Amino acid sequence: MENTVIRERLTKLRQAMRRHKIDFYLIPTADFHNSEYVNDYFKVREFFSGFTGSNGTLVVSIWEAGLWTDGRYFVQAERELDGTGIKLFRMQEEGVPTVTEYLCEQMEEYYTLGFDGRVVDAALGEKLAEIQNKKKIRIVCDRDLAEGIWTDRPPFPCSRAEILPPDYCGESVSEKMERVRAKMREEGCGALFISKLDDLMWLFNIRGNDIPCNPVVMSFGFLSGKEASLFLQRGALQPEVVESMAEAGVQIRSYHSALPFLQNYLFQGGIRHDRGKIWYDEKNVSYSVHLLMKRYGDVLTKANPTEAMKAVKTPAEMEHIRHSYLLDSVAVTKFLYWIKHKNLEQDTVTEADAAGYLDTLRRDYKECMDLSFPTISAYGANAAMMHYEVTPENCSRIEPEGMLLVDSGGQYLGGTTDVTRTIVLGKLGDKMKQHYTAVATGMLRLANAKFLYGCSGRNLDVLARGPLWDLDMDYKCGTGHGIGYMLNVHEGPHSIRWRFTPGAEETVLEEGMLVSDEPGVYLAGEYGIRIENVLEVKKGVKNGDGQFMEFAPLTWVPIDCEGIDPGQMPAKERLELNEYHRMVYDKISPFLNEAEREWLEAVTTGI
Amino acid sequence: MENTVIRERLTKLRQAMRRHKIDFYLIPTADFHNSEYVNDYFKVREFFSGFTGSNGTLVVSIWEAGLWTDGRYFVQAERELDGTGIKLFRMQEEGVPTVTEYLCEQMEEYYTLGFDGRVVDAALGEKLAEIQNKKKIRIVCDRDLAEGIWTDRPPFPCSRAEILPPDYCGESVSEKMERVRAKMREEGCGALFISKLDDLMWLFNIRGNDIPCNPVVMSFGFLSGKEASLFLQRGALQPEVVESMAEAGVQIRSYHSALPFLQNYLFQGGIRHDRGKIWYDEKNVSYSVHLLMKRYGDVLTKANPTEAMKAVKTPAEMEHIRHSYLLDSVAVTKFLYWIKHKNLEQDTVTEADAAGYLDTLRRDYKECMDLSFPTISAYGANAAMMHYEVTPENCSRIEPEGMLLVDSGGQYLGGTTDVTRTIVLGKLGDKMKQHYTAVATGMLRLANAKFLYGCSGRNLDVLARGPLWDLDMDYKCGTGHGIGYMLNVHEGPHSIRWRFTPGAEETVLEEGMLVSDEPGVYLAGEYGIRIENVLEVKKGVKNGDGQFMEFAPLTWVPIDCEGIDPGQMPAKERLELNEYHRMVYDKISPFLNEAEREWLEAVTTGI
Repeated sequence: MENTVIRERLTKLRQAMRRHKIDFYLIPTADFHNSEYVNDYFKVREFFSGFTGSNGTLVVSIWEAGLWTDGRYFVQAERELDGTGIKLFRMQEEGVPTVTEYLCEQMEEYYTLGFDGRVVDAALGEKLAEIQNKKKIRIVCDRDLAEGIWTDRPPFPCSRAEILPPDYCGESVSEKMERVRAKMREEGCGALFISKLDDLMWLFNIRGNDIPCNPVVMSFGFLSGKEASLFLQRGALQPEVVESMAEAGVQIRSYHSALPFLQNYLFQGGIRHDRGKIWYDEKNVSYSVHLLMKRYGDVLTKANPTEAMKAVKTPAEMEHIRHSYLLDSVAVTKFLYWIKHKNLEQDTVTEADAAGYLDTLRRDYKECMDLSFPTISAYGANAAMMHYEVTPENCSRIEPEGMLLVDSGGQYLGGTTDVTRTIVLGKLGDKMKQHYTAVATGMLRLANAKFLYGCSGRNLDVLARGPLWDLDMDYKCGTGHGIGYMLNVHEGPHSIRWRFTPGAEETVLEEGMLVSDEPGVYLAGEYGIRIENVLEVKKGVKNGDGQFMEFAPLTWVPIDCEGIDPGQMPAKERLELNEYHRMVYDKISPFLNEAEREWLEAVTTGI
Repeated sequence: MENTVIRERLTKLRQAMRRHKIDFYLIPTADFHNSEYVNDYFKVREFFSGFTGSNGTLVVSIWEAGLWTDGRYFVQAERELDGTGIKLFRMQEEGVPTVTEYLCEQMEEYYTLGFDGRVVDAALGEKLAEIQNKKKIRIVCDRDLAEGIWTDRPPFPCSRAEILPPDYCGESVSEKMERVRAKMREEGCGALFISKLDDLMWLFNIRGNDIPCNPVVMSFGFLSGKEASLFLQRGALQPEVVESMAEAGVQIRSYHSALPFLQNYLFQGGIRHDRGKIWYDEKNVSYSVHLLMKRYGDVLTKANPTEAMKAVKTPAEMEHIRHSYLLDSVAVTKFLYWIKHKNLEQDTVTEADAAGYLDTLRRDYKECMDLSFPTISAYGANAAMMHYEVTPENCSRIEPEGMLLVDSGGQYLGGTTDVTRTIVLGKLGDKMKQHYTAVATGMLRLANAKFLYGCSGRNLDVLARGPLWDLDMDYKCGTGHGIGYMLNVHEGPHSIRWRFTPGAEETVLEEGMLVSDEPGVYLAGEYGIRIENVLEVKKGVKNGDGQFMEFAPLTWVPIDCEGIDPGQMPAKERLELNEYHRMVYDKISPFLNEAEREWLEAVTTGI
């Protein structure tokens, strides 16, 4: 069946392309800040293609339209693109060209490639510029062709910026700016331009609501030795913000004037102004910003100094985080009790129902502002898809057998949480138990590691992954990521992964960092198992051999012992699991009703 | 008491310095090839200072002489420098300047610094050149002032070069050169100059005897697209070598013409010849070579391509290696039987006696050509010194208590071995047993690891080190190193260590590599424990998750269970130890006499 809605939109897009003399038009999935999640306003690719997945690039020419997405979305994309005439390009399958290979092949001399440089990141922009050099094409990157076509487009996001109370930060904006400026001096930079929203939120101690699950406001930031500017929309402003920023010596300027401001700072009347070296994070700016910087020339392209700073939480932040994880763990534990006591034979409970129930438990807290990402509730074979997204219209019924994987988190006033449990719903076969036990063992082995200061996640990944490698199995993702403080659930610069990226910097694990610990098993068409605790990095003993480091759990949710074969779990991890469960009971039971408490006692007594 | 011998030598050196208008003269510990061990001919520093340690730099000025060495040698250096007037600079102690800091401080404008550029490596040479720029001093680096003073200097090493029979290599010189040239083309290089002796031995399938424990001949190598030259001394030549090299298209030239040849290749009549990019290993050439290359300019400074190639042993080499390790393991096992059955109460057995007995067992094999390094035989607190060197004049008596650490290896026709065992001689205290158990556990955990192809030693180090980190302890060295084939006992480029060196390349563990696995405990003034097996890297299962890799032991020597507390060793490693011991018995017992066999059976029955 023809998808006339999409076909009409594409016709209008092609008309606009002709008007602007554009032969190929590229639409990625991003906002002006290269954010992981975006506001609906930025879903131009979805508007023109109908494909709703979180990763995809649409390329439209006069005679063809193609959509590139990755393995997670092949099935969904096929369904959603049906009848649109858009061709699906399955990324990383053999013989499938990348977007740039496709463009390079299709475009000929004097053709024009168009895209909105504000939503294309610098790396992709550079690749497209290479095609320009190779094939002598023309690039037009200063227009958003959705304007005028997408008439019912959601408004540009503009939530109110809120000042985070001082006792929630532990460090003032002035103190943070001083640290950033010291780093700038160290690197010989006269100025710093920041596009990354969570870095800006951290630096200026503000939060907002411009992206679902990400408490940020659309903003840019600029810092020089003397000046500091925060670019916000007028609608985001409140008197407290103006006041608070004035106190810290930060000038508030209009959001949409950020690029003109930068241009004016670096060039006046088109002539380059010598401002010394300017710092920007090449990986986290749009191609438009990158072009300006390249024209200026004297730049340092390195991760924003704020990135490493915000990763190390202050003692005040840690206090709040511990409390938020406690609240969150209570909600998840109550959810576990609920699902474990459902009569799944008689009552119809879908993946979406389960997610909905858990979401409600979280949202019932007055401290809970939002989820930190859409809850993953994946039953049976669905759990083998690492980023399974559930919708009420399209989800499985949960039966009293196999396992349900639930990965979820909340945005609390006081912290951002992330936790995964895989719930056993019936008797498991030997293979499932073996895999479940290996995942639990790996999670515990990493969580209980001691290591010398100086280690990065690369040194430790094998602890979580080893029990699976011992079974000739692997999971195709990292073991852990950093987590924001009332900010994005995925945060750098540290991580737990084993692969070496030549030239990449490795971040040492520092006291006050948070990191997730989430090994897993993913058997396509069969089942998925993931157990995730969030850990804080702490200092251990210091002696002649150095400063030892260790982790402490922030998550206090029982691990389903019905999945564990005690005979296959090493004695050390068995003791650690029992000790963890003892603490789960101590911390969580005061918040439960009697039935829940009895159940928790039973499931934490030890194996 | 005055050391008149050394004082006289220094007087003569100062006279020579005056003749050459040199104010400061620097003497390092190296040969023309930056070798780890050197021939006696190169022991100029020892000649002028009397200090015999393996690491030291002597700086002599008209009014002062100083010797720099590291912590291993402070006691020995103090003793040996006594009465010489030479000041000891304890490296890395607080407030002690480095050699270059000292020179920078002491030397003033128009002073002259002298050294022999052929025995100073490129890195040190560069640091000295920096002083030249900073302090406007003059550098003279083309003379060896020992000439004319050191009248009874040993002759320049010149053993016979021997062709390694084809069935001992598994790859011909032509095949190897073809692989090297392919790598050169890949890097866009027109030529390659090699100084590193073991790389040259590997490439040209020759061996020699110019350095004790290192079966190398003094040589240089040069390769271009068409030409190949091997620079050898006339005295090293035998007809087979000439013939064999001619067959492979390798031109033999005079050893001492290598630098003039290189100079002539790059410059003719002082004018730069455009030869395209030339490759050399900056870390493994002398400052003299480095200077020539710098003057030429168009260079690639990267580890020799031969380094990574020789690390991966051919199947033919592996066959011989396995056999050599078996022979070697028999010798060490017989030694263990001997020391375990000595009446240490009544008989005087010193560390040197023990080393001597073991060395004899090895040398009794017709296949044994040499030791691969001087045997470390360290009793009690001496074992806490990682590189303890024993001499018959200066060594401890072994008593029937505590532990004896023996680290040793042989050069066999068919392989280079390296093995460490720590032998329990009496009842151990709880702490010793705890540490012994942790070391054995770490050794076994690494040896039995499975991992995905792509891992380097940095990913795996924690497996060996973790059991010690769990006790808030560490050893201040890597866990493992590569091992040559009838070559140097320490070989790169891979290793097992955890620290990150920014910018350093990491070598993936490849099938056919050898690596040592030697965690340890070193308690200054108390005791030392090290257990070392050498492992080969092998391919494991390949499936949808990737190519799995694993290790297999080459060393088959019992681990002293009297040091192990079975209650403190995890079940997995206990099983692995028993399985290892079962195989030790199977492999070694056929070579033992009845008494030895009975004993081996008893000590390998399992814990």
